[in-house]
Amino acid sequence: MAELLKGKAVADALTEKNIETVGRLREAGVEPVLAIVRIGENPSDLSYERGALKRAEKTGVTVKQFIYDETIDQESFLNEIEKINDDDSIHGVLIFRPLPKHISDEAVRNTLVPEKDVDGITDGSLAGIFTGSHRGFAPCTARACMEIAAHSGIDFTGKKVAVLGRSLVIGKPVAMMAMEQNATVTTCHSRTGADEMKIICRESDIIIAAMGRAKMVDAEYAGEDQVFLDVGINVDENGNLCGDVDFEAVEPNAAMITPVPGGVGAITTAVLMLQTLEAAQRTVK
Amino acid sequence: MAELLKGKAVADALTEKNIETVGRLREAGVEPVLAIVRIGENPSDLSYERGALKRAEKTGVTVKQFIYDETIDQESFLNEIEKINDDDSIHGVLIFRPLPKHISDEAVRNTLVPEKDVDGITDGSLAGIFTGSHRGFAPCTARACMEIAAHSGIDFTGKKVAVLGRSLVIGKPVAMMAMEQNATVTTCHSRTGADEMKIICRESDIIIAAMGRAKMVDAEYAGEDQVFLDVGINVDENGNLCGDVDFEAVEPNAAMITPVPGGVGAITTAVLMLQTLEAAQRTVK
Repeated sequence: MAELLKGKAVADALTEKNIETVGRLREAGVEPVLAIVRIGENPSDLSYERGALKRAEKTGVTVKQFIYDETIDQESFLNEIEKINDDDSIHGVLIFRPLPKHISDEAVRNTLVPEKDVDGITDGSLAGIFTGSHRGFAPCTARACMEIAAHSGIDFTGKKVAVLGRSLVIGKPVAMMAMEQNATVTTCHSRTGADEMKIICRESDIIIAAMGRAKMVDAEYAGEDQVFLDVGINVDENGNLCGDVDFEAVEPNAAMITPVPGGVGAITTAVLMLQTLEAAQRTVK
Repeated sequence: MAELLKGKAVADALTEKNIETVGRLREAGVEPVLAIVRIGENPSDLSYERGALKRAEKTGVTVKQFIYDETIDQESFLNEIEKINDDDSIHGVLIFRPLPKHISDEAVRNTLVPEKDVDGITDGSLAGIFTGSHRGFAPCTARACMEIAAHSGIDFTGKKVAVLGRSLVIGKPVAMMAMEQNATVTTCHSRTGADEMKIICRESDIIIAAMGRAKMVDAEYAGEDQVFLDVGINVDENGNLCGDVDFEAVEPNAAMITPVPGGVGAITTAVLMLQTLEAAQRTVK
């Protein structure tokens, strides 16, 4: 029987810490503010936004919403981001993506300043993760994996970590973050042989699954006493939410495992607040 | 008996291609120029500079040398780099490091524009490697590993690659570059257990050794029919140059191996020219 790593406990603990930070910031005369930038009314954006607003209220972070019609042109949108860059009252910025096709994702990412990039989308943030300079911020989901591990007393030093997936949102950054904590990291991806991926996972201490393939990580990927951090959010054959890990198959021999839903995903808004507060703290001194 | 991957053959082939590129650039009215920026008279800088000058002459790349006394202050030095940034006749820049202690390495790296950063030291270059956007350029030694592999017909797709070392000059970027070519990469480092590193290397198809430990990779790290790319430059117990790989111990069962000296290190100036020409090509049209 594995220990179940529920996101809620970690999100609550982070929020408690975040509330203390808000108090200290207010004492220093800083009112922490997150800007949420959205174009259009994508249902999954709206759903995440609701969660973020709720979490912000609980934490004491003020949210300024910047909502634009889908007809906004690129120049006007970049101007809006520049205004947010220049607004000293705003500390963190979340921009919902994907953007409409007529707006260049690259242009948007290169316009936002890394210092406010609390969801880790800019080159500055990604370079900061790659080099270890920590300019900017990590993508929230990648940081959420590290926070759930830290909360659960998992020490990465000398551990073998298999990262499944090489996206910029999770696979690549979480691999760098685990390596920074002295893990030996193998990154597997769609071009890794299926048998090889199973062997690599069986031989690893910690498996971070972010391939976006429902229940791919089954008993054949599992050794003994491993930690499974499941970043996948998929829909199974019965229409239920499930992760990249086949929970029933893997859980019996695992040491720790995150559920889906209610695991890594439940922490991301708390991490968004944490990074907004870190951005605010960097402006104090 | 392993195939010996000599750097000279690769450097010659690259130089031949580079000379053709110079011809095409001249037809387009572009005279390719590399700036070499050096503070003081460090013997290893001078030695590399001599090699680069010779290679540039062979290739038809003009070198402008910017040499400063060790007393130059940071502001003046950064001003010099900004002048080089603004000089449209200069396409690539090599800055010798480490810099004198009174000059911030980070400030210098963040002053140089990634578009001219043909030795891959800026955040822009490193972000480009991490994200795959290829803004800027790779560190020359990392690119040299990939060029020697390409020249030798080594296909990374689906291969298991062990990278030993996690520096920004070689380990981290070469891991990203191998992964971009669809290898499954494990990065080992000083905090990886010794026994574990041996197992990881034995099970890999390609070993890229960049730990800076003389002859560390011995028979215990070797399987059958593997490729060894040795980036180490060390001095052995007899005062002779040697790599991170124990050549005598590993060579009998290897498929391919680079010697030290005369392997990866022999290609770096040709890569420096290649990247300078790529920078020049990006300015055309």
